[in-house]
Amino acid sequence: MARRIRTELTERLGVDHPIVQGGMMWVSRPALVAAVAEAGAFGFLTALTFGNPEGLAEAIDETRRLTDKPFGVNLTFLPTLVPVDYGPFIDVIVEKGIPAVETAGRNPEPYIDRIKAGGAIVIHKCTSIRHARKAVAIGCDMISIDGFECAGHPGEDDVTSLILIPRAVDELDVPVIASGGFADGRGLAAALAMGAVGVNMGSRFLVTEEAPVHENVKRRLVEASETDTLLVMRTLRNTERVLANEWARKIVAMEREGAGLEELAPLLSGKNGLRAITEGEVDAGLIAAGQAIGLIHDIPRVGELVERVVGEAVEIIGSRLPELLTS
Amino acid sequence: MARRIRTELTERLGVDHPIVQGGMMWVSRPALVAAVAEAGAFGFLTALTFGNPEGLAEAIDETRRLTDKPFGVNLTFLPTLVPVDYGPFIDVIVEKGIPAVETAGRNPEPYIDRIKAGGAIVIHKCTSIRHARKAVAIGCDMISIDGFECAGHPGEDDVTSLILIPRAVDELDVPVIASGGFADGRGLAAALAMGAVGVNMGSRFLVTEEAPVHENVKRRLVEASETDTLLVMRTLRNTERVLANEWARKIVAMEREGAGLEELAPLLSGKNGLRAITEGEVDAGLIAAGQAIGLIHDIPRVGELVERVVGEAVEIIGSRLPELLTS
Repeated sequence: MARRIRTELTERLGVDHPIVQGGMMWVSRPALVAAVAEAGAFGFLTALTFGNPEGLAEAIDETRRLTDKPFGVNLTFLPTLVPVDYGPFIDVIVEKGIPAVETAGRNPEPYIDRIKAGGAIVIHKCTSIRHARKAVAIGCDMISIDGFECAGHPGEDDVTSLILIPRAVDELDVPVIASGGFADGRGLAAALAMGAVGVNMGSRFLVTEEAPVHENVKRRLVEASETDTLLVMRTLRNTERVLANEWARKIVAMEREGAGLEELAPLLSGKNGLRAITEGEVDAGLIAAGQAIGLIHDIPRVGELVERVVGEAVEIIGSRLPELLTS
Repeated sequence: MARRIRTELTERLGVDHPIVQGGMMWVSRPALVAAVAEAGAFGFLTALTFGNPEGLAEAIDETRRLTDKPFGVNLTFLPTLVPVDYGPFIDVIVEKGIPAVETAGRNPEPYIDRIKAGGAIVIHKCTSIRHARKAVAIGCDMISIDGFECAGHPGEDDVTSLILIPRAVDELDVPVIASGGFADGRGLAAALAMGAVGVNMGSRFLVTEEAPVHENVKRRLVEASETDTLLVMRTLRNTERVLANEWARKIVAMEREGAGLEELAPLLSGKNGLRAITEGEVDAGLIAAGQAIGLIHDIPRVGELVERVVGEAVEIIGSRLPELLTS
């Protein structure tokens, strides 16, 4: 068998490879999460993608029909126009015996005891050392630290992964997962060199055969370079990094002209993003995409991708780097 | 003797360690550059710091009195209010037999033949793959690729080192130096993992005993965290990342209110920055500082710093990473 990389992440999550597929709204569905699990990595279903707790329960059951390997659930506490009651989602997570929950967005404090009492470990994803410290203080078991280059919400501090990862490793007494900017084995090796226990990849898993995303979107992301992302909603202090498509450019232009939440809201509706992703109208909604799209050049199967990333990292760690050392 | 790291950078520049101290205006003077050379790394004097070619010639002579090891000269082609004639500076570089020139800012094309004919290799520092490709096409020997987290001029694309480094390694057929966000051995190991031949450090060398910078500035940078930098001059499309001091905040506030170059110019004068740096009036001018200041916690001697960075990288490459591999 090929050499593998063993870290606290692989040990705690019971997987072969130190790679996590973080929650992606509309994308982290059973087909992708099961493929990630079968590939020996750890994926998260996004609870809110399924609309209600019953939908999440069905998605968990469906994923289990596709794999007997472990996977988790992402719970994102973002400001939404309609408040969400997360309690019933957590009930489902606990009842189904999900081993790990990825929390993101607002402070998970109101829910953490309930999640942990149910037996899951909590991995909080955040974009600053201040929030990471707070998350550890309230009992989170790991931190997924997300740099400025990430897809989705990078926060408002604009600190990059290269700085946040070693800072988090120094400041926190829990394992740190490196997130934001990772798409290949070089990134995995670099993250491990900085002291992380593994990487979280989003955009990279989105551009795979199994991702439930329209072919047009995958192809557009393959063609895109690292300069083809934009930050929208900066003026609302709810910044999101997305593919620089026509929809995003329109929002940025409106923001420049001083548009407020009321004018922007119709363009920000998740329905547009969902349509873009599922119907392939690539310019008709926001599509979260990180700068790592500059490193994405193909649409592999998930298993092939994970094997390639790990193989490259093993080659770097086992051969290329040691060969640089003088005796 | 302790193990060392050998790359194309150490071979081409004839130094012990794959670490470069890039040009820093007002800071890259003989005392620092000689200390870097003596430590086995490669430093660059900044030509423009010395005002005129005679000043540069004297600085080179002074550096040579302090060390017999190799060092280089940085030539920055930035938009300046008063046009600079670079020809005479290049004459000095050639006459003095300087082995390597770091070019930065605008395209070095008008000068590259003259520099190379004189025997120096040219390392062009840039912030985008497009500019890097162009620089290689006109004959640059290496590229120092500078991510969004860097001190000074990150360009306008805002792409981070974690993406730019592997992209540059893939796209270019010359060695790539990783720049922007590097301050310790973890960063060096990560850069090598991504395929770079070494790292460029700026802020980290600025905060050393030998750097000709007022103690107040060094102490302020030690106290600062990764969130204590700001981008100024974004509205002028000549963005610079600086310490978030009162001076920088004032400029950003003026930019927000629509101030143009004419109103901003007095605040942008290099004289203010020089005073801040040399007289220790930390809030009385712009001080270039990268996000790596979040990783800087002390004011070591240069020799001690280089040894620590290399020692940590050797430990990571030689032990910590290989221990993660299963047999």
